[in-house]
Amino acid sequence: MDIRAVIFDLDGVIVDTAQHHFLAWRRLAEELGIACPPDLKDRVRGISRMEALRIVLGDAWPTYQPQARELADRKDAYYRELIEGLGPQDLLPGVAELVADLKGNRVKVGVATGSRNGKTVLARLGILAEFDAIVDGHSGAESKPAPDLFLYAARALGIPPSQCLVIEDAPAGVLAAELAGMHSLAIGEEKLFSGVRPDLVLPGLAGLTRQGLLRALAEATEGISTWLVEAGDELSPQARETVLAVGNGYLSTRGTYEEKHPGELRATLINGVYDPVPIYFTELANCPDWTRVELEVEGERFSPGSGRVLTEGRTLDLRDGVLRRRVRWRTPRGQQVEIQTMRFASLAEPHLCLQSYAVTPLTEEVQVRLEVPLEAAPGNPGLPPLPEVPLNHWEVLASDAEGRQVHLLLRTRRSGIELAASLGVRIHGVPEERVEVQAWSGPCPGLSLTVRLSPGETLQVAKFVAYATSLETSAPLPCSRAQLAGAGEKGVAELLSEHRAAWGRLWARCDVEIAGDELAQRAVRFNLYQLLIAAPYHTDRASIPAKALTGFGYRGHVFWDTDVFMLPFFALTLPEVARNLLLYRHHTLPGARENARERGYAGARYAWESADDGREVTPRWVPAASGEPIPILCGELEQHISADVAYAVWSYWQASGDAGFMCDQGAEILLATAAFWASIARYDPAKERYEIRGVMGPDEYHERVDNNAFTNAMARWNIEVALDALDWLRHSHPEKAEGLERELGLTGEELARWREVARRMYVPQDPASGLIEQFEGFFQLEEVNLAELAPRTRSLQALLGREGVQQAQVLKQPDVLMLLYLLRDRYDERTVRANWDYYEPRTDHEFGSSLGPPIHAALACELGEIEVAYRHFLRAALVDLEDLRGNTAEGVHAASAGGVWQAVVFGFAGLRLTPTGPVARPRLPGHWKRLRFSIRYRGRRYVFDLTPGMAGPVSPLPGER
Amino acid sequence: MDIRAVIFDLDGVIVDTAQHHFLAWRRLAEELGIACPPDLKDRVRGISRMEALRIVLGDAWPTYQPQARELADRKDAYYRELIEGLGPQDLLPGVAELVADLKGNRVKVGVATGSRNGKTVLARLGILAEFDAIVDGHSGAESKPAPDLFLYAARALGIPPSQCLVIEDAPAGVLAAELAGMHSLAIGEEKLFSGVRPDLVLPGLAGLTRQGLLRALAEATEGISTWLVEAGDELSPQARETVLAVGNGYLSTRGTYEEKHPGELRATLINGVYDPVPIYFTELANCPDWTRVELEVEGERFSPGSGRVLTEGRTLDLRDGVLRRRVRWRTPRGQQVEIQTMRFASLAEPHLCLQSYAVTPLTEEVQVRLEVPLEAAPGNPGLPPLPEVPLNHWEVLASDAEGRQVHLLLRTRRSGIELAASLGVRIHGVPEERVEVQAWSGPCPGLSLTVRLSPGETLQVAKFVAYATSLETSAPLPCSRAQLAGAGEKGVAELLSEHRAAWGRLWARCDVEIAGDELAQRAVRFNLYQLLIAAPYHTDRASIPAKALTGFGYRGHVFWDTDVFMLPFFALTLPEVARNLLLYRHHTLPGARENARERGYAGARYAWESADDGREVTPRWVPAASGEPIPILCGELEQHISADVAYAVWSYWQASGDAGFMCDQGAEILLATAAFWASIARYDPAKERYEIRGVMGPDEYHERVDNNAFTNAMARWNIEVALDALDWLRHSHPEKAEGLERELGLTGEELARWREVARRMYVPQDPASGLIEQFEGFFQLEEVNLAELAPRTRSLQALLGREGVQQAQVLKQPDVLMLLYLLRDRYDERTVRANWDYYEPRTDHEFGSSLGPPIHAALACELGEIEVAYRHFLRAALVDLEDLRGNTAEGVHAASAGGVWQAVVFGFAGLRLTPTGPVARPRLPGHWKRLRFSIRYRGRRYVFDLTPGMAGPVSPLPGER
Repeated sequence: MDIRAVIFDLDGVIVDTAQHHFLAWRRLAEELGIACPPDLKDRVRGISRMEALRIVLGDAWPTYQPQARELADRKDAYYRELIEGLGPQDLLPGVAELVADLKGNRVKVGVATGSRNGKTVLARLGILAEFDAIVDGHSGAESKPAPDLFLYAARALGIPPSQCLVIEDAPAGVLAAELAGMHSLAIGEEKLFSGVRPDLVLPGLAGLTRQGLLRALAEATEGISTWLVEAGDELSPQARETVLAVGNGYLSTRGTYEEKHPGELRATLINGVYDPVPIYFTELANCPDWTRVELEVEGERFSPGSGRVLTEGRTLDLRDGVLRRRVRWRTPRGQQVEIQTMRFASLAEPHLCLQSYAVTPLTEEVQVRLEVPLEAAPGNPGLPPLPEVPLNHWEVLASDAEGRQVHLLLRTRRSGIELAASLGVRIHGVPEERVEVQAWSGPCPGLSLTVRLSPGETLQVAKFVAYATSLETSAPLPCSRAQLAGAGEKGVAELLSEHRAAWGRLWARCDVEIAGDELAQRAVRFNLYQLLIAAPYHTDRASIPAKALTGFGYRGHVFWDTDVFMLPFFALTLPEVARNLLLYRHHTLPGARENARERGYAGARYAWESADDGREVTPRWVPAASGEPIPILCGELEQHISADVAYAVWSYWQASGDAGFMCDQGAEILLATAAFWASIARYDPAKERYEIRGVMGPDEYHERVDNNAFTNAMARWNIEVALDALDWLRHSHPEKAEGLERELGLTGEELARWREVARRMYVPQDPASGLIEQFEGFFQLEEVNLAELAPRTRSLQALLGREGVQQAQVLKQPDVLMLLYLLRDRYDERTVRANWDYYEPRTDHEFGSSLGPPIHAALACELGEIEVAYRHFLRAALVDLEDLRGNTAEGVHAASAGGVWQAVVFGFAGLRLTPTGPVARPRLPGHWKRLRFSIRYRGRRYVFDLTPGMAGPVSPLPGER
Repeated sequence: MDIRAVIFDLDGVIVDTAQHHFLAWRRLAEELGIACPPDLKDRVRGISRMEALRIVLGDAWPTYQPQARELADRKDAYYRELIEGLGPQDLLPGVAELVADLKGNRVKVGVATGSRNGKTVLARLGILAEFDAIVDGHSGAESKPAPDLFLYAARALGIPPSQCLVIEDAPAGVLAAELAGMHSLAIGEEKLFSGVRPDLVLPGLAGLTRQGLLRALAEATEGISTWLVEAGDELSPQARETVLAVGNGYLSTRGTYEEKHPGELRATLINGVYDPVPIYFTELANCPDWTRVELEVEGERFSPGSGRVLTEGRTLDLRDGVLRRRVRWRTPRGQQVEIQTMRFASLAEPHLCLQSYAVTPLTEEVQVRLEVPLEAAPGNPGLPPLPEVPLNHWEVLASDAEGRQVHLLLRTRRSGIELAASLGVRIHGVPEERVEVQAWSGPCPGLSLTVRLSPGETLQVAKFVAYATSLETSAPLPCSRAQLAGAGEKGVAELLSEHRAAWGRLWARCDVEIAGDELAQRAVRFNLYQLLIAAPYHTDRASIPAKALTGFGYRGHVFWDTDVFMLPFFALTLPEVARNLLLYRHHTLPGARENARERGYAGARYAWESADDGREVTPRWVPAASGEPIPILCGELEQHISADVAYAVWSYWQASGDAGFMCDQGAEILLATAAFWASIARYDPAKERYEIRGVMGPDEYHERVDNNAFTNAMARWNIEVALDALDWLRHSHPEKAEGLERELGLTGEELARWREVARRMYVPQDPASGLIEQFEGFFQLEEVNLAELAPRTRSLQALLGREGVQQAQVLKQPDVLMLLYLLRDRYDERTVRANWDYYEPRTDHEFGSSLGPPIHAALACELGEIEVAYRHFLRAALVDLEDLRGNTAEGVHAASAGGVWQAVVFGFAGLRLTPTGPVARPRLPGHWKRLRFSIRYRGRRYVFDLTPGMAGPVSPLPGER
């Protein structure tokens, strides 16, 4: 950290004038006959005099508002009288020494205060001449928490924001420093600053030197490093975009740079905004981008290959999903500028995105121009084999430019979803009247801002973009306009504060703390962050796609990934999200029924790939480069999806005890899927068993097999829990049960047949060893020695061919082991062990499915193989952070993220949900010093705080409700 | 025609002051000691005084330039002295009476003259008070041919341009009136105005009344009606866009409206700009649009459904490819405005497109705003079944806005073709300083122009767009900038004049005049226009796609349509174009060789669908709505394409005698295709014949057949002409012959085998009747009575199914008859008759291929069935003008357009190219009064002027070389 200037707040940092202000305000209040609030002294600290006046006047504000300025002046006069008595003895401890030490080390010092009496006070204190610059209430700058006072001070000092440190005693001042792009030291009690992000908190300045300050700052930064992600050059540019995505459940936006780069995959995906597309049936339409800004310095555009980037860094803060960037750029003409940007998708106002872009010339005065477009149609990637020819799903219905705002109204071309986006800006750092702003409408509306800046002077543009779609409102454009207007009134500081508070509440419910393993700690938080930015908090009509909303892989389709891999996390931490995910499955039941009917089955057959209406949207084939179609069979064969959805219903029901859901939606899903299984199972009279033939199990290396153990056992389980649910419903909501029986044709005869199907369902297993055969004939397939093929750089399918793996005992991902994992209460450890020993070595862990490693990690814990578990765990936890599979560019592995939580909580912590409540049976990796997390179970919160010493069943601490 | 104001030019219309000007100039010249040019009097007529001064000074201009203004003033003083003597007796005959008659009929009258002495002259003539408005050289308006003087006059009269008539004696004035959007009456000799477009020419005004004027105008308009196309509401909006396309061989642009309409297919296609696309391999990329303008009146946007369009008309002038539009719009607030637009793609400067957009408020003063974007990526239509999700082939490399210009630099995403587009504007009708102009860059740069206009006042924006691609220059952006700068210097009037002159030269070579049949006359010209705007005048690397450049059908691919249907027109009228088309086939020989090699054949196998490199780009399959692939077999089976290309080479060679081409390229194509045929033909020893099995002939209803007569006979012919060409080459260019023999491995043995293949090639024909069997087994297929299915609304394939037509004796298009047409010198009339009688009734004329009707028309002429011929001819000639097949939206039927010319020239005119020269054997439809056309044959021009009385061989009149 290179600190070249320190900017001091005045009151509370250099001198404690709080008492003087308080006395002046109190005198004014007394004269007006108004009773002061008891905590007045604290409340008026560090805020503008007009805000303070409002607090002082309280209910009398409307009466006195017309005289506000006069009253404030009166208070100022009293205050000036009071501070007449100040002298050098009133300097707070350590200030004079710190200033001297800084100056001795050629660090510039300045003061930035909203007070109009700043210079008087400094003069009285005898320290005025020490400061290189003083910016006070006469500067005309917007008051803190706006960044302007600090930016003006930096300009006066001639030092760019990134090299300034602010010393503040008020949270609003700390926030202002952050918004100015400066470092900050907060003076006071730590808890006072919980809502803001000082780099360092100290009780006071006594004894502080430059050296000590730098050391303390470095330590403090180290302390939060597991919350920070800095995707570096070890990742491809497109993988970095995925890793640095920001989002808020309503939308996510990839971490593309502000300026356009060749090959970038710029994307903002709003959940549920699907539009048809050839081959893939439908896909999430890429929405107008809110992050693009193009910079020109003296007519030279900041773009790859132009001039030279001297330093560059980007940091995603997982605590609040804020992405920051700092660049030093030398233009082709040799001028240097500093660029600092910040962006977030508000978690508090999910329709709102906020970005700030700040430019500071470093070497000479330059003309700076920012172009801020609202790009209607960045387009979706094209179809194979030509992803670079994008598809444009949007038709522009209207485009307006008004003053400093532009608005777009779009409609998807086939699905007819309307989307409005409104963009507005606020200017900080230079007086607004100096900035020439132009707005234009048209298919790609936008704004440009032009200004001449002197060295050290910063133009900071805060950009607000509001979105609304016809999925949530009948009037998207008025809605996005209103959102934008509201955002403009609140301003960046308040929006950021609300956003942070919302993230704070989420992490309080979900965080998993791991001590002793920074790599794991950061990776786990990164994976949870991915689940949190993807969660549908506000809708039950959309689920979480396989790549969440961070990329175009699988075109935004929803798989069992959500139900089996992600849902348990939500069910046990944010059950309202789990409920929305299942309501999505309920809303799409008509599509699932149609899927079954079309294929000649009863009940509901969920789509292997699902989108807006539950119809099957797995591509039937994709084009090869040669022009030939490559068939894709999962959509027709992976029947197990229907049992997976039932499993999700059951899991949520177990965790939440949500009887309303079970009665109104859950039971119907369980029964409709059971009806499907009862109709697809065929009785073989010779063998006296029910069979399911011609399917694909979880292991997609074997495409059309008979009696896949996973499918058959899950089908049996599905029928059993459906019958249980029906029993429960008959007792608790008999009229509802009757209705469902009538609707689904569940006569006594039919239910008897279900029981028979479940009882006689064939699952090939050797009773002696417990070994389950993945499907009929698997054991007869060719043996392949995977060790002989190591080290590999490609999947087994790529090596052996599609036909080759079909004929071999190799697995893309756990199949029998997946069954044992899901229904682990039904199998004993001996069975788990026997099957583990058989299947684990035959599985393509590195290049098969990313769904495998977290499940293997959890199962390995159960078998006590902690080192093996940890290896599998890391393979899952780092899949995107280190792009282990080379496809992070297409979006995060959201199922793996859910699996990582399961590996930690069910694996290392050994969580079991027992009839008497949750218990843990920890088996932590040797180097972990602590594992702490909480769950919500049947309406109550439980905290697990596990350390290496613990063994056997550990009960949780009760958490707040 | 509603004329509410007449605007008189002064000199030459109201009074002849030419003599006075001449004398004043001569006096000045004498004083300076400069000899006047002999034709000075005529040369200074109707031009500005500064231009006149230049002419007077001649070589002395540089010397006197510093004093120019002073000299002009001196001349003016002499002139004023001279005109002192003018009086009412000097009024030209008829002026006073016409003015009085107009005023009596409530038609306003005004004068618009560049002269600074206008009012003095009118006062001397005693007529000053008669005029409602006078605009003269003091107005500050740009001089004629700029439209400003007339627009200023219209404003002063309060009448919109469309209701003004200008009376002028100078071509520059007539042009200015046209550019102002006004009607015009030219006074003088007709030939004086051949370069401009007055609505009417009269020798003088004597005896003219308002009534007489209107009658004469109506007659004159009627006289050019066969040159005008007004696609009306009987066509779908997208078909209208196709029909109203403009182009210049370099590019074509569909006739979309200026403002965006829902469902529009906005497209500018530049020939040769291909980029890969899934399924179709490659396609012409839709280029930035130059025609879009959005109008706002008092903030209300002119768009479908907003306010009301009171009247609207669009006219494409086939004489010069200028598209004009006139609209009267009532805004939602009730204000009325007149809009007049005009556009053309310059034939003289093929990189340049020009559009003018004029708005005139009619009812009250309003704020007018024009938005003029340069839209980077309108996109190509998407893939089936979702054409509405467009594909975007362009990456934006740079975008600039500078003053009143914007520039774009783009690159196709895979093929890497760079394209630059530069847009600039000039303002007419109001002083420039009153118009607020804003320019913006970004992905969709543009300009906006805002001004307040009073009623009758016109804002006219002339918009210049220049294109350049890396296909023709290594520096597209400097090139488009330079083009734009050059265009700005020339101005609209000069560019339009050059453009018209170029079109005049084309039509002089190509026009076909038909008297007595307006429908046919307009339709034939329309079809020729389509060929002329598609012709690759400037490149030999691109050909003419099946839909020319007017739509996205067949994705811009090139078929035999060009070689067999279009090429004969060019070979016999514009041989340099035919040569370019064949050089394209020569440049793509490597691709054709590769196609052959890949399929295991020798020589060159041309692609059924060809694009930039000659590789086969017929889609192998297209997606159905259900997600299933529909196979397309033409690309693999329609082998006849290689003989079709050879046929084109031979035709051109016969028509042009271009030995250089034959030596350097033609012979190679003939030999390489012959080698292909020799390798694909298989000898059947049992039957002692060569066969070609598993092909598709021209009739695509039968997909995989053996010994298709067309294919086999054309293959035989191909080998024969190749051997002839080799003989010719051995004699004329022995070293070239040797080279080819070596390269193609043409040993004596191999050539002997070729002769054997040709000799023993099997063509199934009944020697008795002459009836040829379309392919082996055709006669055994099911008979279908087409009459029983009439009237139909769908193709036979749609009715009977793909398998159904395969099994039936029904044809999509002529196959055996096509063979007889192409090789008609080899078959006697008896054979033609027998096959006509068999196949014509079995062909799907209405809904089969559009390639059929013109060929049937030509053959019917040969058989003397003129009425049948005329029916087929109209079916071809009107296919797009009346959208007979319902697919004109996808682009024009360019092959049919070529076929229409062939039907007229080879059919009705009976043209034969004999060793002694071309002769006609006319058999005109009964109601045709005259058929006149010219051809170019072996370097000489021949004019045929045929009337109904003529019969037997008619020799042409020689034309100018």
